[in-house]
Formats: sequence, C-alpha cells, structure tokens
Amino acid sequence: MTSPNPLLEAFNRAEYALGGHGRRNVQMLKNALEAWDGGLDSDVYGSGKLIEDFQNKMAGVLGKEAAVFFPSGTMAQQIALRIWCDRQGVKKVAYHPLCHLEIHEQRGLHELHGIEPVLLGGQDRLITLDDVRALDESISCLLLELPQREIGGQLPDYSELEAISAYCRGRGIALHLDGARLFEVLPYYRKTAAEVCALFDSVYISFYKGIGGIAGAILAGDAGLTEESKIWKRRHGGDLISLYPYILSADYYFEERLPNMKRYYEGARELAGLFHKCKGVTTLPETPVSNMFHVHFGLSKQAVEPLLIGLYEETGLGITHYLRENGENSCYFEVSIGDRYEGIPKDKLASSFSLLNDRLTAAL
Amino acid sequence: MTSPNPLLEAFNRAEYALGGHGRRNVQMLKNALEAWDGGLDSDVYGSGKLIEDFQNKMAGVLGKEAAVFFPSGTMAQQIALRIWCDRQGVKKVAYHPLCHLEIHEQRGLHELHGIEPVLLGGQDRLITLDDVRALDESISCLLLELPQREIGGQLPDYSELEAISAYCRGRGIALHLDGARLFEVLPYYRKTAAEVCALFDSVYISFYKGIGGIAGAILAGDAGLTEESKIWKRRHGGDLISLYPYILSADYYFEERLPNMKRYYEGARELAGLFHKCKGVTTLPETPVSNMFHVHFGLSKQAVEPLLIGLYEETGLGITHYLRENGENSCYFEVSIGDRYEGIPKDKLASSFSLLNDRLTAAL
Repeated sequence: MTSPNPLLEAFNRAEYALGGHGRRNVQMLKNALEAWDGGLDSDVYGSGKLIEDFQNKMAGVLGKEAAVFFPSGTMAQQIALRIWCDRQGVKKVAYHPLCHLEIHEQRGLHELHGIEPVLLGGQDRLITLDDVRALDESISCLLLELPQREIGGQLPDYSELEAISAYCRGRGIALHLDGARLFEVLPYYRKTAAEVCALFDSVYISFYKGIGGIAGAILAGDAGLTEESKIWKRRHGGDLISLYPYILSADYYFEERLPNMKRYYEGARELAGLFHKCKGVTTLPETPVSNMFHVHFGLSKQAVEPLLIGLYEETGLGITHYLRENGENSCYFEVSIGDRYEGIPKDKLASSFSLLNDRLTAAL
Repeated sequence: MTSPNPLLEAFNRAEYALGGHGRRNVQMLKNALEAWDGGLDSDVYGSGKLIEDFQNKMAGVLGKEAAVFFPSGTMAQQIALRIWCDRQGVKKVAYHPLCHLEIHEQRGLHELHGIEPVLLGGQDRLITLDDVRALDESISCLLLELPQREIGGQLPDYSELEAISAYCRGRGIALHLDGARLFEVLPYYRKTAAEVCALFDSVYISFYKGIGGIAGAILAGDAGLTEESKIWKRRHGGDLISLYPYILSADYYFEERLPNMKRYYEGARELAGLFHKCKGVTTLPETPVSNMFHVHFGLSKQAVEPLLIGLYEETGLGITHYLRENGENSCYFEVSIGDRYEGIPKDKLASSFSLLNDRLTAAL
C-alpha cells in the first residue's frame, strides 16, 4: 500500500521541525487548563467575569475602547465589515485580492451580508497609498492585513501605513485591521500593539497563529461597534453558552508566547539566511519582517518532494509537511517560526542545510 | 450594599438544587478531558479522525446518512433551513411562534439568509396537523421542536407527529427537527432516536441540555445536505481549526448521561407531583413528558421571591435561581431534571415541599 501523503508522514516521523510550536493535539488544551482553577464559573452567552475580564484585558492591549471574544476571525471580520457598511450606507469594502475573506471563506461576506469587495493592489504585492487614492468607487471600509500572509507575510513601511490611515480618515473610510498575526510584526515595526491599532478603527486578532492557542479571536473598536457586534455574533451562531475552552487557552498562550515574538522574528531572519545559501532557493520576503516567510524552490514539486523525504530521513529535521505548485518548475511552502525552532541543535541545522544545498545542486 | 440578585445568590448558597447537573464551571471540561489521551490529534477545519468519528457515530445514533458537528444549534438550524429553501426555491419556512429562531437569535435567519418565517399554531399550544393543513402559503420547510421548550416542554402524540410527517412528505415540504432535547423525550415516546428522526428530513441535536456538555451541536440528514452545510459552516465562521474541546466533551457526557434519560424523566414526574401538592402551584405540562416542565405560582414575583429565599436558607434546597413574571399575579420558572435531583435526600425533599406549601398557603 503506497502512502497517500509520504511528505507529511516523513515530516511527522522527523525528530525536529523548523516551524510551529508543536503538534496540535489535546495536550495543548490540557496544559492550558492546568493553569486555571476548576471552580471557575463558565462564561454564559457572552456574559460573566471570565469572558468580560479577558475582553477588557485585550481592549487594553490593543488600546481600544472595548473588545469582544469570537470563536473565529471569519465571523469577527465579516461582522466588523457589516457594521461599517451599515453605518456608512454603502455595501462595498476594499481589500487585497488574497485577503482571507476573498479566498478562504466561501464568499460568506457576500452570501450572508450582501457585501461586495473591491480588490485593491495586485496578487503579488501589497496595497499602497496610491492604490487607495486611485479608488474610483465609494467604499465603507478598507481592510489591511498585517502582515499580508499569502505573499509571504510582507509589510508596508510604517510611514506608508500612517499615510493610508490619514487618507482614509480624511475621506471617511473606516480602516479595519486583519491582525491575525499582529503581535508577530511588532518587533519589526518597533511599536506596541496599541500604537499600530491607533491607526485603525477596528481590529481583529487571532489566538492560534503565533500565540498558538486552540482557536478564537478578538474584535476591538469603539463600544458602539463592539455592542453591535454581539448582536451579529448571536445571529451568526457564535454566541455560545460557553466559549471558555478557547478563552482560557487564548489567555494562557498569550501570556506564554507574547514575550517570544522577537525571538521568533529573529529566528525567521536567521532561517531565511540558511535557505538563501541553498541552490535555487529564494524566500519571500527576502528578509522576513515577522516570524513567517515563504520558501520557493526553482524545481517542480515532483522533484523536490522525494529530495525532502530523503533529507528528513537522513537528518531527522523536518523542513515542511507540504509543497504547493507554483507554475511548472517551481514550488513553495510557508514557514512560521514558533517554539520548535530554538529546540533544533545548531549543528543539526547547519549540517541539514548543507545537505539540502548538495541535493538541490545535484538536482538542478 | 443590597445584592443585585438575591434569589440567585440564595440559590447558589443552597446545598441542594432541584434541576440541572451541577455548576457550569471549568471542572466540567477538565473531567471530560481526563477521559482522552493528550496525544490525540486535533480536528483541523472539520477534518481528521477525531471529528469524523464522532460525526459518523452520531449519524448512526440518529439513523441518518451523515452528520456534521457545529459549534451551536443557532448556526446548524439556520443553515439547515437555508439549504431547504435553496433546494425548493422558496424562502419561507414555518415554525412555532416561540421557536428558538424566532425569539433567541436576533432574527438571524432573516438578517443573514433573507428567509421569512410563517408562525404556526399559538403561543400557548403545540403545532397541530390542522395548523399545517391550514397553511395557505408555500413553504420550503416545517420546523418542529420536540419537546416545545417555551411552553413547558410539551409533545404531540406520536401518531400526530407521524401524521404531520406523512402530510409534509406528500406535499414536498421538508420536515426539520429541532431536537435540542431529543434524547430527553425518548423515554416518553418509547422510541429510539433513529425512529423519531426517521419522520424528519433533517435533525439538529444539542450537547449542553440534558447531555450536559460544554457546547456544540450536530446536524444530520442526507449526505448532500451535510456536505452543503459544511460550506455554510465556513461562511458563518463556524468551521474552526479546532472544535475538539466541544466534541470530546459532547462524546464524554453523551456516553455518561444518555442511559440516565429515563431516570431524569421519572424524576420530573415525581417532582411535578410534589409541586401539585403546593397551594396555588400548577405545572405545564401537568404531567411532564420529558425531564423538563414549567412551574407556575398564583402569586406575583415580588411575593414569591422573598418566600423562596427564606425557604432556601431554612432548608438548604434551591428550587430555582430565577422567576419570570407572567401577568400581574403570576410568575413561573423552568426546571430540567439532571444529575442533581437524585442527590437530594428524600426526607429533605418532602420537608422542603411541605414548608413551601405552608408558606404559599399563608401568602395566598
């Protein structure tokens, strides 16, 4: 019987892995729950000390008036955009062509809310101030994602961000932040979360990317927006009787991993340097600006896959569990640095990348 | 400082309580997780052995082709109704005036799906076959809730249910079951879940009512419906990367409490009998047909509340944590029998109800 996914299986057998915090298994939740007393009362349909305390805490971190916990970012962001559209009376929003709402949500924004997106910028680059200026349609809200995940986690210069924010404020366009990986970009920007969020009217953050929680999201903004978002949360079916499994794990891993963001970022820069020494390999961005980047091979997926499997078996270091085709003679994957990277012995890392370069050189 | 909710606080101080399984606290989840190995891999966006096994198990229990786990019933039911409307090309569904979708979901069905409800039957009684026959509008789907919670958990005769099902099938109307408390009515009907569900085209069940889990729901039906429901689950923001905290606890408490449903039902009948002996107290229904019923006092909330607080303090038995006004000289509450009822010593129960009768007699 041939394996349905030999690369994934070889990756799972490897002792070390470049990216991530570790396996997504039940132990993650058990570990988080150990930090909390069993007698703590559940939140109940969005109320209660447990959820309110965490919402207040995150509002403080993000420098916003109020915050609401959501089971998912998909729900939080659709709702934020819906509220901006209702406030402004225009059912159009602008975002990047590779925005999460455009490619991962089955057109929920349109199907559930009747909102039409205007795609801004190009598939291979960031949205610029010029793109926003050139908009010839009326929109209620502009969504910016920091970092822009699908193009390797790129970031605009902070001054460009400030200029876009000022432009939107001047034109009455609400600015919403898809901050799924907001904490991961703070070391590069050398800003606090609240400083970045001050440029935006509403903000979503996720707890299972760099934070490494189980699931869950926060939407923050003015109190009018967050109160209205609770009504929409109920409508979406997200106002669960108990969200505490996600809240408690979000809080636990937030405290545990927030101080590590600079190390993850530095790890990403170091790792990108190792890839640059390999024949035919490039990274996007060339110098990472967060804990993530994309690795591109100048060879087909069919050529790279067996090469990687052999490498994992020889070295015990897993590079990636998947490859995505990118034209005929190119493939790539995404890597996000988390807790696992520092656990790899430095000599193991060096010898593995030396071997990777040898194999790629032979294959090219 | 006067307490904002003295009845609730007195209830929480009482050693015993009539209804429920126990406090909704973090220990509930810790207990469930102890049954599962930490190395078990998370579900990932609706895929993986953990979620698929449970969905298959519940499809089997409900006698349906397939089942999908949802974070909430609100989400599951809106989606089921949307799919029936899309299939039939009519954006109208019929349900009871006190249906969950009508009174607890902020009109999500209309706001998100553009579906209009036709309210069938009266606020104080069940939907009958005659109501369905008398419908003069075209509808895609009829939703029936078993038991009808907001009127004390009443049930139609099984033969009436069969007749409604046959009528709907004959007219091409999809029949959907709001089975939030389905397992709780099986002892009265003396049917299996699959037998009841066979009368319906789609079924929703909940895991935090009689089952007493943390949250979560199952939607079951034909495989076309469940596959389509996954797309809508993504759109609603319910396709979380990890739903396992709810799935594992649902599975755990399902196994633990399913065998107890007959005892809960018998407890409810016994308890209703105790209330009937109290002056000015009635129950709805008079004889419970599930683990739940409503208790009505022929006195105002203002009169009953201090009387109950005194009773809890004297006897240590909590009757209810809330009262709802029902006209000028009447108030009521809902009770659902769970694990706690059997833990009350029989002499404590008898003496408390004797005292309750004394106090009510004096007050009337």
